[in-house]
Amino acid sequence: MEINFNHLRFLDADTEYAAAQLILLGCPFDGTTTYQPGSRFAPTAIREASQSLESYSPIQKKDLSQISLCDLGDLELPFGNTPRILNLIEQAITRLLSDEKIPIVLGGEHLITLPIISAFREPYPDLILVHLDAHTDLRDEYLGEKLSHATVMRRVIELIGNENLIQVGIRSGTQEEFAFASRIGCQYNTKNQQDLSTLQQKIKGKNIYISLDLDILDPSILPGTGNPEPGGYSFRHLIEVLSVFKTGNVVGMDIVELLPYQTPHQISCIAAATILKESLLLYFTGS
Amino acid sequence: MEINFNHLRFLDADTEYAAAQLILLGCPFDGTTTYQPGSRFAPTAIREASQSLESYSPIQKKDLSQISLCDLGDLELPFGNTPRILNLIEQAITRLLSDEKIPIVLGGEHLITLPIISAFREPYPDLILVHLDAHTDLRDEYLGEKLSHATVMRRVIELIGNENLIQVGIRSGTQEEFAFASRIGCQYNTKNQQDLSTLQQKIKGKNIYISLDLDILDPSILPGTGNPEPGGYSFRHLIEVLSVFKTGNVVGMDIVELLPYQTPHQISCIAAATILKESLLLYFTGS
Amino acid sequence: MEINFNHLRFLDADTEYAAAQLILLGCPFDGTTTYQPGSRFAPTAIREASQSLESYSPIQKKDLSQISLCDLGDLELPFGNTPRILNLIEQAITRLLSDEKIPIVLGGEHLITLPIISAFREPYPDLILVHLDAHTDLRDEYLGEKLSHATVMRRVIELIGNENLIQVGIRSGTQEEFAFASRIGCQYNTKNQQDLSTLQQKIKGKNIYISLDLDILDPSILPGTGNPEPGGYSFRHLIEVLSVFKTGNVVGMDIVELLPYQTPHQISCIAAATILKESLLLYFTGS
Amino acid sequence: MEINFNHLRFLDADTEYAAAQLILLGCPFDGTTTYQPGSRFAPTAIREASQSLESYSPIQKKDLSQISLCDLGDLELPFGNTPRILNLIEQAITRLLSDEKIPIVLGGEHLITLPIISAFREPYPDLILVHLDAHTDLRDEYLGEKLSHATVMRRVIELIGNENLIQVGIRSGTQEEFAFASRIGCQYNTKNQQDLSTLQQKIKGKNIYISLDLDILDPSILPGTGNPEPGGYSFRHLIEVLSVFKTGNVVGMDIVELLPYQTPHQISCIAAATILKESLLLYFTGS
Amino acid sequence: MEINFNHLRFLDADTEYAAAQLILLGCPFDGTTTYQPGSRFAPTAIREASQSLESYSPIQKKDLSQISLCDLGDLELPFGNTPRILNLIEQAITRLLSDEKIPIVLGGEHLITLPIISAFREPYPDLILVHLDAHTDLRDEYLGEKLSHATVMRRVIELIGNENLIQVGIRSGTQEEFAFASRIGCQYNTKNQQDLSTLQQKIKGKNIYISLDLDILDPSILPGTGNPEPGGYSFRHLIEVLSVFKTGNVVGMDIVELLPYQTPHQISCIAAATILKESLLLYFTGS
Amino acid sequence: MEINFNHLRFLDADTEYAAAQLILLGCPFDGTTTYQPGSRFAPTAIREASQSLESYSPIQKKDLSQISLCDLGDLELPFGNTPRILNLIEQAITRLLSDEKIPIVLGGEHLITLPIISAFREPYPDLILVHLDAHTDLRDEYLGEKLSHATVMRRVIELIGNENLIQVGIRSGTQEEFAFASRIGCQYNTKNQQDLSTLQQKIKGKNIYISLDLDILDPSILPGTGNPEPGGYSFRHLIEVLSVFKTGNVVGMDIVELLPYQTPHQISCIAAATILKESLLLYFTGS
Repeated sequence: MEINFNHLRFLDADTEYAAAQLILLGCPFDGTTTYQPGSRFAPTAIREASQSLESYSPIQKKDLSQISLCDLGDLELPFGNTPRILNLIEQAITRLLSDEKIPIVLGGEHLITLPIISAFREPYPDLILVHLDAHTDLRDEYLGEKLSHATVMRRVIELIGNENLIQVGIRSGTQEEFAFASRIGCQYNTKNQQDLSTLQQKIKGKNIYISLDLDILDPSILPGTGNPEPGGYSFRHLIEVLSVFKTGNVVGMDIVELLPYQTPHQISCIAAATILKESLLLYFTGS
Repeated sequence: MEINFNHLRFLDADTEYAAAQLILLGCPFDGTTTYQPGSRFAPTAIREASQSLESYSPIQKKDLSQISLCDLGDLELPFGNTPRILNLIEQAITRLLSDEKIPIVLGGEHLITLPIISAFREPYPDLILVHLDAHTDLRDEYLGEKLSHATVMRRVIELIGNENLIQVGIRSGTQEEFAFASRIGCQYNTKNQQDLSTLQQKIKGKNIYISLDLDILDPSILPGTGNPEPGGYSFRHLIEVLSVFKTGNVVGMDIVELLPYQTPHQISCIAAATILKESLLLYFTGS
Repeated sequence: MEINFNHLRFLDADTEYAAAQLILLGCPFDGTTTYQPGSRFAPTAIREASQSLESYSPIQKKDLSQISLCDLGDLELPFGNTPRILNLIEQAITRLLSDEKIPIVLGGEHLITLPIISAFREPYPDLILVHLDAHTDLRDEYLGEKLSHATVMRRVIELIGNENLIQVGIRSGTQEEFAFASRIGCQYNTKNQQDLSTLQQKIKGKNIYISLDLDILDPSILPGTGNPEPGGYSFRHLIEVLSVFKTGNVVGMDIVELLPYQTPHQISCIAAATILKESLLLYFTGS
Repeated sequence: MEINFNHLRFLDADTEYAAAQLILLGCPFDGTTTYQPGSRFAPTAIREASQSLESYSPIQKKDLSQISLCDLGDLELPFGNTPRILNLIEQAITRLLSDEKIPIVLGGEHLITLPIISAFREPYPDLILVHLDAHTDLRDEYLGEKLSHATVMRRVIELIGNENLIQVGIRSGTQEEFAFASRIGCQYNTKNQQDLSTLQQKIKGKNIYISLDLDILDPSILPGTGNPEPGGYSFRHLIEVLSVFKTGNVVGMDIVELLPYQTPHQISCIAAATILKESLLLYFTGS
Repeated sequence: MEINFNHLRFLDADTEYAAAQLILLGCPFDGTTTYQPGSRFAPTAIREASQSLESYSPIQKKDLSQISLCDLGDLELPFGNTPRILNLIEQAITRLLSDEKIPIVLGGEHLITLPIISAFREPYPDLILVHLDAHTDLRDEYLGEKLSHATVMRRVIELIGNENLIQVGIRSGTQEEFAFASRIGCQYNTKNQQDLSTLQQKIKGKNIYISLDLDILDPSILPGTGNPEPGGYSFRHLIEVLSVFKTGNVVGMDIVELLPYQTPHQISCIAAATILKESLLLYFTGS
Repeated sequence: MEINFNHLRFLDADTEYAAAQLILLGCPFDGTTTYQPGSRFAPTAIREASQSLESYSPIQKKDLSQISLCDLGDLELPFGNTPRILNLIEQAITRLLSDEKIPIVLGGEHLITLPIISAFREPYPDLILVHLDAHTDLRDEYLGEKLSHATVMRRVIELIGNENLIQVGIRSGTQEEFAFASRIGCQYNTKNQQDLSTLQQKIKGKNIYISLDLDILDPSILPGTGNPEPGGYSFRHLIEVLSVFKTGNVVGMDIVELLPYQTPHQISCIAAATILKESLLLYFTGS
């Protein structure tokens, strides 16, 4: 009988850093949130909810024991200075990428995707960003700010090019944002098999990064988010849409905008942890 | 930089009364509620939740800036005297109608629809009432009372005639109520396109008033209501059904039975505010 | 005007024991629950929520006045001694069966199904168990324990034989459990009409016992359960699946694993009470 | 090992009616509540919370095994007809009194005290009513109603005389109510030992009925009530004040205005159940 | 019977601006909040909770009918630009003061006190600020920011002078803040009568402004605040301390840092509304 | 700018094990809990709530920077096997003691104190256990079990002797438990200065271990516990009582029975974290 002490981690993600292909890290940042902050508490909450999950997925007939995952904990962030925080996130991801790791990042708010993508530019100059969200996040400015969870995708395409953004699930934004999205042709439907095939063609064999804002789900499924929008995805539809991206080469992923302490907290946190588990099985277990 | 003080209102509904086609008002009355009161707090809660909405609807590709809406606040009601309260509501609506306004009324409980319809009789003698609800509300008496949220539609048809009531979404009532509904033929299905076409034919070009009890939605979408009934509409199905009535001439509307402080309050209030927004865009922005 | 005192019961289930065909009883036991106990409070909560229900079902066009139901209250259980508790449950059910009653049991946790089935063996040696659940409950041991809510169906088939277990709704378990289920062929789909016909054929005219773990429902519909699993049944799909079993001869039923005080408690308890009502109407009102 | 079925009751209050000195009954009526109803659910909730209590009180060094208590369940009430309900309550209490029982009544709202006192008039013409509450309840009318939880004590003194009302804990009311209370001299302080002695003198050896509105407690101690008023009694102070009345001859008691489902429900319900337990031990265990 | 429409206001504060001595306004700003925002929703919540209050205070034997109060609603604030927001608040207060009104301001977060005090400098150059709070708010910088709810009192004394700050209730801060407070001698005890007399002497006959952070109360009394600190004031002690300042000439007041949607929301909002009512009666009803 | 990753820990307790005098560890075990489990989540919740605390205590005028604390995370425990778990806890503490560390243990349920004390026997044969709790925990058996959170202190005194147990705060238990406590003389009052002096004399200069069950606090202060008992300590009284034990030589401590997800969770978790902070400052910062 051995005596071990553990810090909280996702399921039993205890592979050593050196040996792991996948690195999980939290970015507990919600500094530009305008409506309801609290996503800074999400990484801890997702790790805790994961304790109630089985490692096996009957949907995929796969088990997490097939992957090597190291949970590094949370990135230490100096509260209150947005540019410095973004810089730190970029450096951390740069280091992981130079070690040839695949980063799996738990937000925090959506703005964290910007420095992450910035770090991906050099090793993956052809990166396609798959953005799953209820909101366009394509404003040029929000309340006078260029850097915000509401402008993040506008900033991101300044890095990767309009043609490398794929948006699905969007159901809220201003008239200007939708006009802009229509101009650059970034939004895709997921209603039927043909929609999904179109998407699949678009990303097949490409290096893709998946940025998943949990408010893509219907508020009944995941009430714990800052800007719930009625009329969202069911859990099964989200899994179906995520499955499409298996044909790409997923080189990184983030899951953002969980407000873990929004009542009823349990179902939101378990949904988020399950989506992380299913994503790991979808993208990183071979065929 | 101007100094303005505002009382709480729906989004930025700040058109002056004289200039506005649409008049929003709250009727914070829940005096006959037998199970769980609290709908008196709904008008304030819907106004507050509206602050988190965009004015643009990507579903309809329209923006609220296209309509002229005046939010008058709440009607002042003498608590505790039901007949006097109903009388006051009728007088208030009468005045709005004589000013050729379209009243958009936030309940409160469902009984408020009775005096509203009473006020519509003179200017709109041919009015069709579209009643969206989980419950028939067709009892002749409830606990010995003729005036109750459970009898309201029975009283209404005494005013407008059996043939001018259209009910959709109904999934609860007594055997007698369903027998009565069947006799007068007021209940319609909304399952498929043909159902919706039938409805559309029925109201095309007619003057219609829409009375929406929010418990038509599934309790997972809107848990904050007094008598939640499992098995209700999804948000998207409700919007689809509401769209049918565009071909009528909507001359008034109410949204009733939100219990804003029922946990989890946020998703219920945002759903209610979004339905109001989508309804305004559906019925009052021209084609 | 009569003065009556009542102890809490399901709706107005006041038929005398001798006269009743159906006997409702609670088994407030949650002693082997590992994650979140509280299902011991479920029988009281279901009875209380039933007060808000109509006795008529517009889905089935039937009324509870057509059945004779006696609500006995809760079985008195000596806390803390699992084997003795299971023994008491078995004896209680044995007595009901020897009186030719149909037991309708409210859990409590899922382990209660084991002694119930044990009591059914003698009078119904050919019994088929229909198990509706999110979880396989087919572990051989759980945390070293043979008797647990996670092993209950493994123990049950030791009594009734592998071929007499029918599982539907399952979406969580270990790799070993699914391998075992696949070996004995106990899991059935319910996706389309053909799936449902297959099930219907399997049980037509047979004596069946229905064990319903409420976590088969999606957590948005019934958040109040100990191990919520995203991606579950809608309320209407559950009713549809339950309808299939009408062609069998239902000789007993249990409804387990409601955590009534999980927020938001109201919608979970009303859903549970409604499912009980619809089941009673489905199985015990003649054609 | 015996098989017993129990309906929910307070602790193990299973003395037969004939043998019991004390009769517990619920009056689940909240029909005149204007702000937040729900006290109709209180009798069930208090019984349920009692399951977590020890039968022994270290404060009093007494055990509930010393008293003989029969829990009759709830009085069956025809919803919606206030005068008929009040009449039924009066008849039920009359019957208990004619059987020489001591009624212990769980509300429900405060108006139930009126028919109870009415029933006490004949057997106890000299009855003193001890009224513990945050609110005076001395309005002559409330919203035009003579019969209301806000007028109940005004009606009661029309039965027992101004001089037989003792109020403690009052901290809310209109200017008129306090003027009236001052005129009839019914309000007593409980701040220091002298205040308590004055009270004790007043009721020593007299037949008293104790009516306890739980909102006398501070909202931090008991948040679950319809009209919480800051600045209330601590739990220990309430027990101390209740102890004063030991020197009277307590011939009946009610505990009213618990809203059991107000968050956080657990501490309110346990507080209410504990107060009932301590009261039973204070008044009915001999010296 | 008159038809009136009302926007939400505190109790029935419907005096016209011109006629009112006291002007109530909301400043729904929580932009620098670092831990838990939401105080922007407080003005609406306090107005709503006030509907459950009596206008009479038995503590003070006074009634709100004795004062003339105009509730202007909320100041319109451009989200996201802190300096511009502070400037607007200052201008609004300046205008009220030039109209010889007494501003009663509902936050929002504590930073709003800075522009308010700035506006008071000219008309009241000798102003004493009475600061009731759990936190010193005396940091020189917080997370690199000079303008923050955590630095507000440091900024304020740069305007009014160290000697004109009086702090009571403080129980949290850094070592440096307490050292600074000790150096300038701004913190006062309120434990006994002598402490209160000392305070009373200090402000007697002076022009004082009262800034009340609701977290001075114990979290059991007011759980709805962003940084609850155990060990705070009871409700009665706060009223007692507020009474001390009656001997000063109160020329303005703010009540800040209520998080109205923190569970359990009801008791927090009612406590806040009651404190506002008692303060109005204490300071503005003559002797 | 350095890139650091952190696993969740109490405040910034980042001293290396070798250099630290004090070792914090979680024992997330709640396996014998009979009423409401969930204390297994407490160590994570206390660490998270600690992020909102200042390191400085104005009560004590001390700062946590004065102590060297290493947060090891949680002890890895094999769910479901109580004896093996207790054995592991004992071994872990034994190792810490042989390294001359002072263990500060976060429960989990109260039974964890038994193996901890067992580990202390050898290095501290004269150990005095100070037990702060609402419950005696002195049953000989509970539901037939010898090892339970309700029997833990009975088992502990079999190890350390009746004379070495000191209980304070007790307000619930059976008649037998209080009789036993009275026989061995283990319970002490804390009402006045003399009570506290008596305690202080008893432990002065002795090696003491402090076991703090958070339900000693009043449920209004800390609602998040499994068996809340009305009438408990205020926060300030608990700090006052804890201060008494400064004159002993505190060689270990545990804080148990927090249910972090009981609504309202925030105030309970912050109270628990603050008590840990104040205890560290009381006992481990020199005079």
